[in-house]
Amino acid sequence: MKIIETQTAPNPRRVRIFLAEKGLAVAFENRDLMSLKSEEFTSFNPEQRVPVLVLDDGTHICETVAICRYFEELQPNPPLMGAGPKGKALVEMWQRRVELGLFAHVAHAFRHLHPSMAALEAPQVAAWGEANKPKAVEALARLDRQLSVHPFIAGDAYTIADITALVAVDFMKPARIARPPELTHLNRWYEAVSSRPSAKA
Amino acid sequence: MKIIETQTAPNPRRVRIFLAEKGLAVAFENRDLMSLKSEEFTSFNPEQRVPVLVLDDGTHICETVAICRYFEELQPNPPLMGAGPKGKALVEMWQRRVELGLFAHVAHAFRHLHPSMAALEAPQVAAWGEANKPKAVEALARLDRQLSVHPFIAGDAYTIADITALVAVDFMKPARIARPPELTHLNRWYEAVSSRPSAKA
Repeated sequence: MKIIETQTAPNPRRVRIFLAEKGLAVAFENRDLMSLKSEEFTSFNPEQRVPVLVLDDGTHICETVAICRYFEELQPNPPLMGAGPKGKALVEMWQRRVELGLFAHVAHAFRHLHPSMAALEAPQVAAWGEANKPKAVEALARLDRQLSVHPFIAGDAYTIADITALVAVDFMKPARIARPPELTHLNRWYEAVSSRPSAKA
Repeated sequence: MKIIETQTAPNPRRVRIFLAEKGLAVAFENRDLMSLKSEEFTSFNPEQRVPVLVLDDGTHICETVAICRYFEELQPNPPLMGAGPKGKALVEMWQRRVELGLFAHVAHAFRHLHPSMAALEAPQVAAWGEANKPKAVEALARLDRQLSVHPFIAGDAYTIADITALVAVDFMKPARIARPPELTHLNRWYEAVSSRPSAKA
């Protein structure tokens, strides 16, 4: 088993943190972003994206959250995707809120404005990149309200929603979006999740 | 238990089809899109989106796939989100490929180009709306290749990935994106999934 990744990209980092929190060790193979356009890579991931989990039977599992799901089902403890019907649904709700409401806006701002992404994001639409910056900040304010009453994003326990949010917040730096200092609950949470050993994975 | 929806919107339709395939009956409450901006609605869904599942204990579960997850966990048969670690991961991979690679492009084209969305999608960036149209068609071509060797999108069984894809393809009409007639495998699949009683849900 191995995971094909690009070490500097945000999505592979989500998987590395997830595995560190589970205490699982998996071999990683680094590829540069441009090589994802190759015929060989496209043959097992037509979406041309990392990470990709390669199982020993040759199965390729693409998509960050699908890879996390595989390991969650294989080793449910500690639960990072919730427990029971209501618990699993609420973690999935928060994971998706963070992914679609924050992470996606940061990614769009980066992909449509950063010169290094011109070949991978065609066409770059600068006006769309700019439109995403305030949307990302609004998402942070919504998270701040949730974190004013809960230690973690999905409630009392650290979950995949915290992983997606941590990676999104760190991704704001290359995307050139400032984290508002007045979001004190968010900033308290950020210090806490950044201090976990998994954040260095 | 009830589900708050907007009947004409694509995401609530995904949940209605999912429940029909499970053979589950849940009460639906219709709201118009503009009412989602109200203080009352925002109090339980700050994202201002439908559908929202309201449980008997007062819990609100937002996000389409999280709502589907709740019912999948409650009643696993027929499995619409896969079985076993590998099976669940592969269905999640395909569901996400369809959602991020097709559905999102159709939604962006609609939201950024359709006059009726000016108040809900601000700012509308027409160039971004147009850029999404060929991306949606490329996604259809990738699905056509998968459907040339499998009856359904995630393989041998009908799953949530088929539901997301069916709703996305039907959403192409208001988004003014044409379905290429040469994608014969996709079109065979579309006729099959559209003929299931659940498609009318």
